[in-house]
Amino acid sequence: MENKQWIYANRPTGRVGTEHFELRHTTLDTSLARNEVLLKAHFISVDPYMRIQQHERRTYDEPHPLGIVQRAGVVSRVLSSASDHFKEGDWVLGYNGWQTFDKCHASELKKLDPDAAPVSTALGVLGMPGRTAWFGLMEAGKPRPGETLVVSGAAGAVGSLVAQFGKRAGCRVIGLAGGSEKCAYLKDRLGLDEAIDYKKFPDALSLHTYLKTLVGGVDVYFDNVGGMITDAVIPLINLRGRIVICGTISQYDGGLDHPEMAPRVLQHMLFQRATIQGILARDFAHRIDEQIAILAPWVRSKEIVFDETVVDGFENLPNALNMLFEGKNIGKLLVRI
Amino acid sequence: MENKQWIYANRPTGRVGTEHFELRHTTLDTSLARNEVLLKAHFISVDPYMRIQQHERRTYDEPHPLGIVQRAGVVSRVLSSASDHFKEGDWVLGYNGWQTFDKCHASELKKLDPDAAPVSTALGVLGMPGRTAWFGLMEAGKPRPGETLVVSGAAGAVGSLVAQFGKRAGCRVIGLAGGSEKCAYLKDRLGLDEAIDYKKFPDALSLHTYLKTLVGGVDVYFDNVGGMITDAVIPLINLRGRIVICGTISQYDGGLDHPEMAPRVLQHMLFQRATIQGILARDFAHRIDEQIAILAPWVRSKEIVFDETVVDGFENLPNALNMLFEGKNIGKLLVRI
Repeated sequence: MENKQWIYANRPTGRVGTEHFELRHTTLDTSLARNEVLLKAHFISVDPYMRIQQHERRTYDEPHPLGIVQRAGVVSRVLSSASDHFKEGDWVLGYNGWQTFDKCHASELKKLDPDAAPVSTALGVLGMPGRTAWFGLMEAGKPRPGETLVVSGAAGAVGSLVAQFGKRAGCRVIGLAGGSEKCAYLKDRLGLDEAIDYKKFPDALSLHTYLKTLVGGVDVYFDNVGGMITDAVIPLINLRGRIVICGTISQYDGGLDHPEMAPRVLQHMLFQRATIQGILARDFAHRIDEQIAILAPWVRSKEIVFDETVVDGFENLPNALNMLFEGKNIGKLLVRI
Repeated sequence: MENKQWIYANRPTGRVGTEHFELRHTTLDTSLARNEVLLKAHFISVDPYMRIQQHERRTYDEPHPLGIVQRAGVVSRVLSSASDHFKEGDWVLGYNGWQTFDKCHASELKKLDPDAAPVSTALGVLGMPGRTAWFGLMEAGKPRPGETLVVSGAAGAVGSLVAQFGKRAGCRVIGLAGGSEKCAYLKDRLGLDEAIDYKKFPDALSLHTYLKTLVGGVDVYFDNVGGMITDAVIPLINLRGRIVICGTISQYDGGLDHPEMAPRVLQHMLFQRATIQGILARDFAHRIDEQIAILAPWVRSKEIVFDETVVDGFENLPNALNMLFEGKNIGKLLVRI
């Protein structure tokens, strides 16, 4: 069987793009060993964390090796199975990477129920981004009714959920995003209290001044972006405020290897007895069942909005990854095969 | 009765010194209203936090007003009393400021037992610095046996206690201080595992490189200093490490108003799922009894070393405050009247 694979071929130093990947046509032996399953990919994920793993040095993992299929979460359908747990036609979630077909051990797969929720949500609200958003906000952010929550990257997969979870928790929620389309989305579709287009501000100080007038103090800052936005928000943190570092996407084009210079902010942690906590979805991997028990009913009842930006075509995977850093997605960015 | 007072007269923009205070001779009416107590100061405190309060803008408090007696903790003796709770000769702790005599309501005073510990320790290990060190380390730092604790400002009032509490908690303790005398103190008198003279390093990168070789990863970083030392330590934080921001004395000469530029560090919080928490002694003011119950026996048995640098003479108070920022003290800096 012909298989197509995107190989991670060259480490980017700045923005990642097609030039860092090689499209390879290979042949997949479809014979199955005991407990193996043959899969056809339907939805392949692109996520900001992929760019972190492409660094040469250790970040939160060892670097993604060169010369292998780009790792990624994938929603697939079972073509054939030598496992008692899966049968032809089953929908599954696996970490199969950027390839059209794969063969793997049944233990590496999670069965999906297409009647419970659209299968693509296993890469979104019912998957890694949803886990990050739910536990990151509730466990690290600890939102309380009447508090002010500021979310950066609020139109993205994680941010759009955090913002809505914050509203459910009774917070006043201010979302930051790039561009008027995203800001209209935050106000009109997600129902946030305020939406701020950070691209309108030339620097951290002007954004800070605007935020100070609009928002006053910040009880919870859920940060997906870092950089200038974070410089503007941290000095507004309230007494015993919580800052959750979920991502720093503004720094992923080289700023992790060669950190930008920025004004020191730790004095504000002292004055306000505030906390900063870094979180990753994996910190909550043992609580997937809890996540789904809480979130799936909200998805089915549409109490939570979860939008996807879907790019069609396996060939477009590197471009789709690039789109994340161009800020072109609203909600979860996916490639449909 | 003649009273001498140091009035906070001019806001410093850089280093604080005598020029920011005025020595005033006043007359104190010694007649007492019901429940008032007349006091003679014996030990007056100088603390780094005083410099923070001298800023024009709000920090963790409103700015210290100009034209009034410099606020400070004071250990005094009762000269006369119109309160049932105090009698002539009693030792007391109050927040009476930089003056030789004071008259205040009995409810503002805490009686000291000179047989339990030297009365000056009420400004040190059994007072605010001890509370900061004990609860800051144990509650925010959460040290565990076998972990690595790095303490900046390790020869100071808070740092010297944190370092010893860390040893008691079973940590490997590395202290940073300025100069070979302080480093010898850390090793020989406090028994730390390593002492590093940060002044030997021209920049954060060279200090970081040295620390990385010597220390490896850091589980708990108790920071009294900020600046270059913090830039060097944070990238070494271990998985789920705890960073306690207790002070940033390197920034008190103007860096709070005009923050220095420094490399961004929040990515490390994400990679290591680490936390930063700011603490102040006041966060634990309701636990003074607990503090004293734990620490006083250790002070009496000399299981905990607590040294003082004593400056004699009321006239020297502004100079003594200045000495803190020159790094001239080992242990708690006090002025004896």
